[in-house]
Formats: sequence, C-alpha cells, structure tokens
Amino acid sequence: MIDDIRKSPLYTIVNPKSIAFFGASNNFGAMGSTCFASMKNLGFEGAVYPVHPKETEVQGYPAYASVLDLPETPDLAVLVMPTRLVCKTLEQCGRKGIRHAIVVSGGFREVGGDGVALEKELIQVTERYGIRFLGPNCIGVANPHHKLNTTFLHYEGSAGHIGIASQSGSFVTQMFNYLARFQQGYSTAFSIGNGANIDLVDCLEYLGACPNTKVIALYVEGIHRGRDFVETARRVALKKPIVALYVGGSETGRKAGFSHTGSMAGPDRLYDGIFRQCGIIRATSVTELYDYCRVLGALPESGGRRTIIQTHSGGPGAAAADALGREGLELAEISKKTSEKLKELMPHTGSIGNPVDITFSKNPLDFFSAIPKILLQEENADMLLVYFLISVEMATRPLKAMGMDETEALAQAEKLMKDLGESFARLQRECGKPVVGFSFRDLSEPVFQALMAEGIPVFSDPKRAARALSALSRYPRLREKIRAAETAN
Amino acid sequence: MIDDIRKSPLYTIVNPKSIAFFGASNNFGAMGSTCFASMKNLGFEGAVYPVHPKETEVQGYPAYASVLDLPETPDLAVLVMPTRLVCKTLEQCGRKGIRHAIVVSGGFREVGGDGVALEKELIQVTERYGIRFLGPNCIGVANPHHKLNTTFLHYEGSAGHIGIASQSGSFVTQMFNYLARFQQGYSTAFSIGNGANIDLVDCLEYLGACPNTKVIALYVEGIHRGRDFVETARRVALKKPIVALYVGGSETGRKAGFSHTGSMAGPDRLYDGIFRQCGIIRATSVTELYDYCRVLGALPESGGRRTIIQTHSGGPGAAAADALGREGLELAEISKKTSEKLKELMPHTGSIGNPVDITFSKNPLDFFSAIPKILLQEENADMLLVYFLISVEMATRPLKAMGMDETEALAQAEKLMKDLGESFARLQRECGKPVVGFSFRDLSEPVFQALMAEGIPVFSDPKRAARALSALSRYPRLREKIRAAETAN
Repeated sequence: MIDDIRKSPLYTIVNPKSIAFFGASNNFGAMGSTCFASMKNLGFEGAVYPVHPKETEVQGYPAYASVLDLPETPDLAVLVMPTRLVCKTLEQCGRKGIRHAIVVSGGFREVGGDGVALEKELIQVTERYGIRFLGPNCIGVANPHHKLNTTFLHYEGSAGHIGIASQSGSFVTQMFNYLARFQQGYSTAFSIGNGANIDLVDCLEYLGACPNTKVIALYVEGIHRGRDFVETARRVALKKPIVALYVGGSETGRKAGFSHTGSMAGPDRLYDGIFRQCGIIRATSVTELYDYCRVLGALPESGGRRTIIQTHSGGPGAAAADALGREGLELAEISKKTSEKLKELMPHTGSIGNPVDITFSKNPLDFFSAIPKILLQEENADMLLVYFLISVEMATRPLKAMGMDETEALAQAEKLMKDLGESFARLQRECGKPVVGFSFRDLSEPVFQALMAEGIPVFSDPKRAARALSALSRYPRLREKIRAAETAN
Repeated sequence: MIDDIRKSPLYTIVNPKSIAFFGASNNFGAMGSTCFASMKNLGFEGAVYPVHPKETEVQGYPAYASVLDLPETPDLAVLVMPTRLVCKTLEQCGRKGIRHAIVVSGGFREVGGDGVALEKELIQVTERYGIRFLGPNCIGVANPHHKLNTTFLHYEGSAGHIGIASQSGSFVTQMFNYLARFQQGYSTAFSIGNGANIDLVDCLEYLGACPNTKVIALYVEGIHRGRDFVETARRVALKKPIVALYVGGSETGRKAGFSHTGSMAGPDRLYDGIFRQCGIIRATSVTELYDYCRVLGALPESGGRRTIIQTHSGGPGAAAADALGREGLELAEISKKTSEKLKELMPHTGSIGNPVDITFSKNPLDFFSAIPKILLQEENADMLLVYFLISVEMATRPLKAMGMDETEALAQAEKLMKDLGESFARLQRECGKPVVGFSFRDLSEPVFQALMAEGIPVFSDPKRAARALSALSRYPRLREKIRAAETAN
C-alpha cells in the first residue's frame, strides 16, 4: 500500500510531461485521431509527439516517422493502432527508453484464439524493457487536473473529486457528459481493459493515495487478485469511501462480461461478501454508482440517521418519508424549540411534523433561507432532505404579471433562482450538516445547477435521494468496523 | 363497473361545458388566481364564470357577485377558497342547480379537530343537493383532451394516454413538466384529496372506461373500500395495465401519509397482496411509476422475455445484460441466419453474441437502420434494448472538421439526429416488437426526443430500462391469470 502516488507506475501514466502518440492522423474518422483530438481539446500542456509512418504533420503537430526519431524520450506512449503493430511499436518504445504506456488497441486475450498468444507476446516485450502499461483493450485515462484525456470523447465539465477504476471504458468516457450535468467531474479516471500489466488493484491503490480524489468508484466485471484487492480496499476505505458496481452476478451479466473483457465473474453473493469485508458500498446500478459518489464526495460526514424532510407538497414529502424508512433512515423528531421558531413562518395549512410541510410559504423566499436555517439548527437531526418545486418559468410568471417584459423577466427570474440556490448552499456550509435535494423538474434549472455547483446534490427522485443519504450515513460505520478489526488483530 | 364513462359522476367533472369558479381574483399571489390562470392558459373552450364578492372582472372574464346571478347553471363548480366559506358556497351552488364540484380548499378531516366536523357538514350539504364532488383538500383535475386544467400549475406538453388517480395532487401537477420531457402526457388526471364523496375506486373505474387512457397510474397512501377496489381493479386490469406506487408501507411513510391526507395505511405485505390479487404492477418509486406507464402505454405487448441488447460499448452492454437477468428476462439466442446477415455490417472488433456489440460501426448510420432491422427480424427474440451514445455535439464535430461553419454544422447535426430517431422508430412500428433505449446523455437530445415522440421510451439507466421491459412482459401474464380465475369461477 503506497502513501505517495509518485510511487505508483500510474503516476507517470496520468501525469506525463511528454507523450508519444501512435495511431493519430489527419483522417478524423479514425479512433486514434479522435483520441488525439480529445487530448488537444482539453489543452494538454506537455509535449506531444505524434508518430506516423507517412504524415509529416498531425492535427497541427509535427509528426515523426519513428519513435526513435523523437528529440527526447517521452514519459508515456499512447497506442491506438492496429493490433498487429502493437508489439513491434512497444519494442521500439522500449529501445527509445519509454517506460510507461497506454495500449488502447484491442484484439488480444478478449477475442480468444490468436489474441491470447498476442497478449503473451505483448507482456514479454514490455517486461523486457520494464514498461508498465494500462490495457490492452482499454480506452485510456483522464486526469483533468493535469489537462490530460487520452479517450475518444472530449472531457466535459471541470476537474472534480471522483476517482474511477473501470473494467469498461464506457463508464469513464460516456460519463463525462453525465457528471458535468450534475456539476461533477473526475479526479482521475482509469479504463483498465484486459489489465495485462496494471490492474484494478493498482488503480485502487493509486486513487487511495491521490489527493484530488475524495471518493472512489469501481466498475467491476470480475476481480482477479482477490486477496490483494481485499487488503488494498480495506486500507483505502479507512481513508475515503469506495463505491462499487459489480456486473457479473447474474447469469446474463456473467456471459456479457466474459465476452467483453474476458473476466471470470463469480456468484453475486461472493462479491457481496468481498465488498462487505472491504467496507465497500455496493451500488445496484450505474445511476446509483454515481449518486453515491456525488453525496460521498461532496457532503460532510453524517453524524447519524435522523433526517428532516422539508417540503411544500404532501405527496413528495410522504414518498420521501417512505423511502427514508425503507433505506434504514429515521425521521428526526422536531423539538419544541424548532416548532416555535417555525410557527412564525408557516401558514395555517402547513404541518410542523416531519415531513415539515410548508404548503405555501408566507414568503416564498423563506423556503430557501429562513426555514432551512431553523431546520439545520435542530439538535435532534443529522441530515436534511429538501423537495424543490419552483422553476424559472414559475418565477417568471408573477414578474410578467407585474408588467415586466418577457426577456427582462426571464433574466431576473434566472438570476433570482441562481441566487436562491447559492444562498441555500451557504446555509449548509455554515452548519456543516449534509443536505440533499430532490425535484421532478429538469436538473438543468439554474437553481439546481447552483445548488450542485456549491456541493448540494439534487436528485430526480426521493428514493434516489434516500438511498444516497443512506450510503452517506453508512460510510463512517463501515470505516469504524474496519478500524476496530485492525485494532483487534 | 361502468362500460361508458358518461355513466360516471367524473365524466362531467373532467368534461364540463361550463364552470363556476370560486376563489380567483386579480391578485396573482392567491392560489385560486393561479388555478384560474392555468385553466385559461390551456385554452378551456367552455364558458367560465368567476364568482367574486367584490371584483367585476377577473383576469379578463366578467365576474359575478353570487353564483345565483349566473346566466346559466354551470356543469361544474370549482372552489379554491377559504375553508369557512366552502359549505355556504356549495349550498348556493346546490340551489342554483349545480350537481358537480371540485373542492380544492383544505382544512377539513386532514387537520383533525374542527376540520372533522366541517367535512361532515360538507357531506351533508352536498348530499342534500345530490352534488358529486372531488376533494376536499385536493388539487383538481387535468383533462388535456378537453383543454381542462384546474390545478395551480400550467399544463405542459400535449394530451397523452396516461391516466392517473392520485392521493397526492403533487403527483398530478408536478409531473406535467416531467412527463412532457419524455414526450408523454396525461389522458386524464385526478387528485383525490380526502375523497369525501368520490374516491380512488371511482377514479379507477372512470379511467378503466376512458378511451383516451391506455395505462393507469395510481399513487396510493391508503385504500378505504378494499373489496370494491379489488373488484374494480381486476376488471380494469383485464382491459388495460394498472401501475401503483404505495407509500405507507414503512413506518415513516405511514406517519407522513397520515398527516398528509389522513389515510390509514396498512403493512407493506398486505398491499403487496392486494396489488398481486388485482393484477396491478407495483412500482417502488415515483420514477418507476412513470417508467412503467411509459412502456405499457406506448409499446405493443411483449410476446415473451427473450431480449436482444444492441450496443456499441461493452460496459453498458454488460450492465444491461446483468440488469435484464436480475429482472427475470432472458438474453435471446442469436440465430445463424441473423449472424450471417450481421457479419456484413460489423467490424472485426464487434461481437455477434448477445449483447450484439458493434463497437464501431463501419457506417455509423447502420446502428439506426440496417442493424436494428436485422435484429428485429430475429425469430428467437421478443424485445430489443438499445444503448445510444451519439449526441448532436459528436455529430457536429466531423462536419466542422470538413470545413462547415458552426451554425450550419449544428443545424445539420440536429436534423440528422432527429431523422435517425424517426427512422429507427419506423422500424419498430413496422415489426411490431417492443423496443426500448437507454443512454447516459441528456434525454433532451433531438435523437431521444424524436424516438420518444414516436413511441420508443428511452431511459437514463440500463436498470431502469430492464425493469420497465420486465413490467411490460409481465402484464399479459397477469391479465391471463385474472382471466383464468374468472373462467374458473
């Protein structure tokens, strides 16, 4: 277990100063060209050397006919080229002194037949030169903190704090846009592919030590070094939460995973046991994997299970209460002191139980400031779950009714909603308790974007919010269990 | 059990020719004014008579000081006014000859104390005049096919085929925007409130007979006429699918539901049994309630459980396969005939197992036409689940690389994506098998909006898609069970 990421072979792979790139050209239809364009798009600041047998320039960069011609020895080689050229190219990289690589090319062990032999050859060549590499059959890495993205999709959003190690490249690249919509981003993302040299355990170890990573996501089709995995995960889980999605527990998932990365999956219960032993929080879907990361990465730790629901609609309040109960959380008891303070702000139709159902606020702004401020001070409560209804369109209507013109009303309403989100988030920061929202409106609404940018996750269903809060409240207990076991040993 | 909706008291309530409206004014902050504005906004074509003690005009309509002054006897009275005025107003409505009402006003049984007596008085007054009414403490109705919306939120999107009866008004109004984003809409939506005169069973019966309704959603906090409910639901389920979300099964849900509508909830297992007995498909979240309605309302019936997954990414394919297995569905076996046809279109990196993983299509358009066309002809398969990745942004890039200017490229890409969605949907209609999509991109992308508008539901997670397909394949079996039991009796 490393304490400094510089000790990991992955450090150079995601923090290279210079890159030799194989497989990029000026033909924009080719995969290699697309990966190269992504790297350029994120503004990688190191030296980039495209190597191409014919081109003299690739996408504006001077190209080299052979890696041996490069003016320096780059830190990293990225290979996105036909299978048959991979071993030969790595051989040349080795001769040039390159010691780190990403092999995106597929056609190895995962296709069976000749591919198995080819992967053995790949391992021999790299071992000969001491080259550490990710892949083959992977999609590369993204480290937006270093402006590095070697995948075929453009990075979207900003550098974040979710680290991922994935046995599917899709759950790296195809989530760039997904995460950006929630104002989230990766710290560092690894696509493991066949894991011929660097595997899931190495990536987990790296992310455990990575200072930009607050929470780790794992997408697993099959674990190979079982004992090492458990040992590493237990140590990492002491420092930061790990969330895992395991696909392979069902017969259908097992088959699909095998044809995808050649992973040998085990029964669901076995993996459940491994995860439990490691203090890993298990997700049951892709959505949940990232939902859990969103709360665990952004929010302070929860001191317990007692939750207040703030709503202005009975049904969503009741649905949230039901969901909290099903996820093992409790409705906090509202103290007399809080009741007294709330009474002044609530209409007679409101209910000061829990859910705190405001129905119609006397002053709509209270819902975003005075009321949550009181609720966050409640000593009987550990967390706050808030239902949001209001949209820009709704805020625009009264302004138009007052005679304001359409464009001006829209601009005012957008600003208002953004401000409300930001001031709400300030309350959360001041009190330090976890706050989560949910709404059935589009989460692209300015109020939600503001809340999410300021660290308050908003979900599109009360059940998702409740499950995420449950994961948040589970982590300190899981960590305590590992700590206790370590002390006992 | 009615066979003609005209026999239901709800027929006039959601298809009135004329309405007396109590509680609307020119003060736009008032709830009644907001409801009135929604009605106006949807363009209700019947006569509308605002009744107001002081105003002579309300939002452009001539107002009347008393209902007794109206020039005709309206079909329906809508009351959104202070609790203490409700009984007196209904008394006057009765004298005027009005026989149908919606009582939005709250402050009755649900608040306890004096409210209980007040609800009794309300019942007495209405019984004296034979007035049938929805509420009190409800949010009204929406029948977009009749351009009627008495709720406080504007109706969004178009008239659809999902009928809902809800013990929470929020799950009517606050889903207008939600459904519109999926190109869905309500046929008719009822907020039941306290159900003092017309209850859940009446609404279910109406929706069962409503020709615009293809699928029925129920939001339940507690069922009162148990036997009637079961009898009605069983008959309706023979004609169209019913999906229910029950909140009240957990201790926390039970408490919240009681404070909301005063419903007495029962143990979760009891409701599970009731739903099973009725052939009702149970949803475990708000999201699922509508996910199930989306597939059951839009898609043809599934002939079985055998599903093909079409993907160009291994991970999403594996995750979908795993989810299908967990939901009791099967991966269809791809026949030799299909394999042969696919081979011509697939690159060497692709996999013709199931998932059919195309990796990179030789021609990207094949993913939307030639390939699904072949898969839909597979005799071993009942359903198709497709993973979509491509976005407008991705389609714009090559056009810009070819030198097209930004605006033109964007317009072309948008048109292309919309066309691809539409042509894909045509394939589904021609073959008649259910097709569902999933993607991690924003569902507001033109390709998804086109698919959804043409009747192909797209979900933001493979698990959601798998659960929806499972519900779709379950319905014919549930119906068969009821039919068999009826024949046996």
